[in-house]
Amino acid sequence: MNSTGTLFRVTIFGESHGPVVGVNIDGCPAGIPLKEEDFLDDLKRRQPGAAGTTPRIEKDYPDIVTGCYNGKTTGAPVTVIFENQNTKSKDYDHLRKQPRPGHADWVAMQKFGGHNDHRGGGHFSGRLTLGLVAAGVIAKKIAEPININARLVEAGGQTDIDSAIDRAVKEDESIGGIVECRASPMPVGIGEPFFDSLESRIAHLVFAIPATKGVEFGSGFSASKMTGSEHNDNILSIDGKTETNHAGGINGGISNGNDLVFRVAVKPTSSTGKTQNTLNLETGKVQELTIGGRHDKCIALRVPVVVESITAIAIADLLLQAQQRGRVKKN
Amino acid sequence: MNSTGTLFRVTIFGESHGPVVGVNIDGCPAGIPLKEEDFLDDLKRRQPGAAGTTPRIEKDYPDIVTGCYNGKTTGAPVTVIFENQNTKSKDYDHLRKQPRPGHADWVAMQKFGGHNDHRGGGHFSGRLTLGLVAAGVIAKKIAEPININARLVEAGGQTDIDSAIDRAVKEDESIGGIVECRASPMPVGIGEPFFDSLESRIAHLVFAIPATKGVEFGSGFSASKMTGSEHNDNILSIDGKTETNHAGGINGGISNGNDLVFRVAVKPTSSTGKTQNTLNLETGKVQELTIGGRHDKCIALRVPVVVESITAIAIADLLLQAQQRGRVKKN
Amino acid sequence: MNSTGTLFRVTIFGESHGPVVGVNIDGCPAGIPLKEEDFLDDLKRRQPGAAGTTPRIEKDYPDIVTGCYNGKTTGAPVTVIFENQNTKSKDYDHLRKQPRPGHADWVAMQKFGGHNDHRGGGHFSGRLTLGLVAAGVIAKKIAEPININARLVEAGGQTDIDSAIDRAVKEDESIGGIVECRASPMPVGIGEPFFDSLESRIAHLVFAIPATKGVEFGSGFSASKMTGSEHNDNILSIDGKTETNHAGGINGGISNGNDLVFRVAVKPTSSTGKTQNTLNLETGKVQELTIGGRHDKCIALRVPVVVESITAIAIADLLLQAQQRGRVKKN
Amino acid sequence: MNSTGTLFRVTIFGESHGPVVGVNIDGCPAGIPLKEEDFLDDLKRRQPGAAGTTPRIEKDYPDIVTGCYNGKTTGAPVTVIFENQNTKSKDYDHLRKQPRPGHADWVAMQKFGGHNDHRGGGHFSGRLTLGLVAAGVIAKKIAEPININARLVEAGGQTDIDSAIDRAVKEDESIGGIVECRASPMPVGIGEPFFDSLESRIAHLVFAIPATKGVEFGSGFSASKMTGSEHNDNILSIDGKTETNHAGGINGGISNGNDLVFRVAVKPTSSTGKTQNTLNLETGKVQELTIGGRHDKCIALRVPVVVESITAIAIADLLLQAQQRGRVKKN
Repeated sequence: MNSTGTLFRVTIFGESHGPVVGVNIDGCPAGIPLKEEDFLDDLKRRQPGAAGTTPRIEKDYPDIVTGCYNGKTTGAPVTVIFENQNTKSKDYDHLRKQPRPGHADWVAMQKFGGHNDHRGGGHFSGRLTLGLVAAGVIAKKIAEPININARLVEAGGQTDIDSAIDRAVKEDESIGGIVECRASPMPVGIGEPFFDSLESRIAHLVFAIPATKGVEFGSGFSASKMTGSEHNDNILSIDGKTETNHAGGINGGISNGNDLVFRVAVKPTSSTGKTQNTLNLETGKVQELTIGGRHDKCIALRVPVVVESITAIAIADLLLQAQQRGRVKKN
Repeated sequence: MNSTGTLFRVTIFGESHGPVVGVNIDGCPAGIPLKEEDFLDDLKRRQPGAAGTTPRIEKDYPDIVTGCYNGKTTGAPVTVIFENQNTKSKDYDHLRKQPRPGHADWVAMQKFGGHNDHRGGGHFSGRLTLGLVAAGVIAKKIAEPININARLVEAGGQTDIDSAIDRAVKEDESIGGIVECRASPMPVGIGEPFFDSLESRIAHLVFAIPATKGVEFGSGFSASKMTGSEHNDNILSIDGKTETNHAGGINGGISNGNDLVFRVAVKPTSSTGKTQNTLNLETGKVQELTIGGRHDKCIALRVPVVVESITAIAIADLLLQAQQRGRVKKN
Repeated sequence: MNSTGTLFRVTIFGESHGPVVGVNIDGCPAGIPLKEEDFLDDLKRRQPGAAGTTPRIEKDYPDIVTGCYNGKTTGAPVTVIFENQNTKSKDYDHLRKQPRPGHADWVAMQKFGGHNDHRGGGHFSGRLTLGLVAAGVIAKKIAEPININARLVEAGGQTDIDSAIDRAVKEDESIGGIVECRASPMPVGIGEPFFDSLESRIAHLVFAIPATKGVEFGSGFSASKMTGSEHNDNILSIDGKTETNHAGGINGGISNGNDLVFRVAVKPTSSTGKTQNTLNLETGKVQELTIGGRHDKCIALRVPVVVESITAIAIADLLLQAQQRGRVKKN
Repeated sequence: MNSTGTLFRVTIFGESHGPVVGVNIDGCPAGIPLKEEDFLDDLKRRQPGAAGTTPRIEKDYPDIVTGCYNGKTTGAPVTVIFENQNTKSKDYDHLRKQPRPGHADWVAMQKFGGHNDHRGGGHFSGRLTLGLVAAGVIAKKIAEPININARLVEAGGQTDIDSAIDRAVKEDESIGGIVECRASPMPVGIGEPFFDSLESRIAHLVFAIPATKGVEFGSGFSASKMTGSEHNDNILSIDGKTETNHAGGINGGISNGNDLVFRVAVKPTSSTGKTQNTLNLETGKVQELTIGGRHDKCIALRVPVVVESITAIAIADLLLQAQQRGRVKKN
């Protein structure tokens, strides 16, 4: 389904080349100051335009059509809509004939019996993350004073990210990257045992972001190579602060008051300038495919704000639950 | 919450040292052959007993108390209960005074205002995974003929796992590991765009397993270092089979008919033989803590069957949904 | 929350005097023919215009902004939006000062700390049922060939409904009524034991319709005065057809193949021409209140199509579930 | 599904003649005093034994097997189990041959392909309400200081209930009744607009109780015969108290601080002493059926405590949500 959350419930909808994409946020508390300008900074961070990103620029202006009155949320569902403007009317029928490797073209066609809107990826388009970013802006207000910050820490295997992008542009190749997210100060007690663990919720949403391939918390995959006495975080003070933070701020699925830290692996953009050899459904033969147009060289550049947003969404929802269920202690 | 799933809904309950742990499975189709013996193989794989695992052995006999009649599921909720037997009556009050690093002792106390059952980790105990394994056994029947197989591929950073365990036992240290899971043959069309993507659902459940720190699908974190033309899986035949499988069998959140492949990072068991320096809440000082008793040296040894189980749970639930919503094509 | 349903999930949003009201339908199967004209008949039945209904007429044109392509549903969420046009810019501040009896003015102000959009009832407005009717149109297609039909069978306590309306118009008073809904031919097996019983789901949605005060299935409240041998429906044939239908087509929460029959009590429109004595929050005194403008004399006239719609929504959702879980036998 | 609720989530399970029936309550706040004796009063009210009720008496002792420690809830799921003891081993196969009119025998067989446990009604048995009553006991503690009280106000169409029962016993017939429920003092703000309206939630759960045929709030079906000025409840004081209470304490789906009042229609027990004429599936003919054993003459006698319980469940869940979402003002 296209909804997530228990008390702060986010539903995204739309297609890349349909009239709109948007988001509905149900369960948003009343009285939160909210105006369209509040969305612009984060939306801008999601936009293409930098080196390594696609030149397809849309205005992406958020239209709050429900749930706000006099500059504040009303307690009714908030709906934010983005008109799709820069949708070139070019022929997308080739996607039906020769589905692009790495994209959802083929599975969408199979799953929905060919009824899916395939233009520009349709409902599978990265444009749907506009709704995630919009919901994230509201979620960040609920999560205050927690500061959530994600950034690209590696691209194409390099920590010198600019140089990696330059190379990709030069070679007309796409590259991936690693996004690291930190949230601080974290209250103690966010997350529930097992299925609503803080990791479960964040990981769930991380994989709702197109192009993600992995997620790790704290020491993550490195933890598998450590010993228990290396890995354990000794508690130093009464507020739960630990000597190290291999746990990434979570024990038993619940925030422990230390910084929340996790990393997300982003694959290289599936659309690359290189010619590929893949099946042509019409001819039944493997044939060359060259993807025209200009695409993101490194979609990972645009992912950090989306990772921040989904983190805020997870935290806002669990925070509302935690205040209810058990105790949340502010640090 | 302690429930997961939409149509195949799993609820786990119980505490390590309470009367029982168990699981309730709602939405299980009627007419599935099911008897208590069906659970034993998987339960045995979850049990301690091998080198590197704790000698605390419980009978772990599954008692099907509802939802079965004449050896078949009835369509009513199935409840399976495990009595806790080998619960030593020793004093656990020290956990209140000096919470164990790496465990949920401290956060549980904070979150639940000290009302949590702390004995042996209480509701946070790994014993709760008994319910996951039991639910997995039923889920595997629904997922047939998909074969789901998970195994430990690395322990303590080594692929020679026996030698890693030997060393850990010798040094009285705990170690972590990496579990790889594969499912095959996968139908096309399992998973929904965005929040019910196959990765989202599996990742969600992976982090419901205690001690997991990361998950990656297909090429995973390595993908972040690849180029688009290296990473893309060219489609070779009409049934969607690809040349490579960097995607791990998933595009756009939906199974593409190739093998599902993912890896899970498991941290070293938090209980280690080494003395640790951590806060004593009574004295307010950082003091030595030695964890007595005998514990798993490498909990990762017992994780594969749990990973298999949660994979089956995710697949069964999405399979039921997919059959409903769109098309599922059997390979 | 403003969502309902498990597999066919309906979310309504908007305010009476905001830019739009609308609906999002997630889980809609792909390939259902759907165009804007399909909504018009049912929307027209919901519209005011007849004697006894308010002259506030809006175009109510349904704008399908997502989830459709080439005249068919795509499997992605369908969003239908209605622009609010005929919203008089008059001052609604008096609703803050002297909340109207029978309306949600006062509770909304209390619940949402005064942040609610109070203009024309805001999110509590009957205009929100536009979304229910739109969702119902799609649900009816899924429920085919079940024919769902609701009609007003009593108004102001009379079965001669025209005469009751005439009297109400003459006396400038509002009146209530009773709506009866029938669905046929019903498959056997819709509904789940207990919390997803067919009655539970329908009753749940009946009370999402403003102005409803009661619901009864089959013999309903009369059943409480009958004996068991009068009330029981003897089964006559192998397809479950019964001699009588006091059960209203449901046993144990599950459709039994006989006609589904239920009745809904609708209260008189809260806005009446008569002067009322109610608290003025500003003065703290009970004072006269005359509600200006022209309002529905008998809102019950517009309710049947909404009752049909929510019935279709309940049936569609349970039908999708039933096909999955157990057996549905078409009659 | 067999679960209900968002934050206070209740799952019931079991069969009449299986080993147990029970309930799992997830989302129960930590620190609520709870011991097995707390359940006994309400369980006793549900028990048979009075004139007009069946002599099948079970011990119905509640076994709290999870979620409690040291006499308080821990924040983990609470599971309460009841062993089935007085299950006569008589042959129930006749229910397969000649399904009882008014019971779920026939639909259960159809829906679950004959795999249902039919003994004593199986999962459809009224014994499942034991779990509702147990959950209600906990919910009442959460809802404090709201006092919820339900009682039988009419039986067999008479307000002199004893005489109605006497007549039924004498005539060996079953009769129905009407249960009225009141809750007071109600806080303002419980319930959400539309799908989580207080009426929606209560009505949903009312129809999870076997034998219910109708529900009406406040003036209910009578409202359909009143005029607006008769029906409207004028507000008299700043805390929302109204002159009349035709609304039953709810406006716009939200509690308005006046007493919550609703009525439930209960049909006559389906098992009656009279001989019935109904289909024999084996012979394919309509034949006489005499239901042996001794049954409740008036199941409505046992329903009030169940109505109280589900009301408490609905209120507890919405109360937890309301405290989160908007404002709840204690009266």
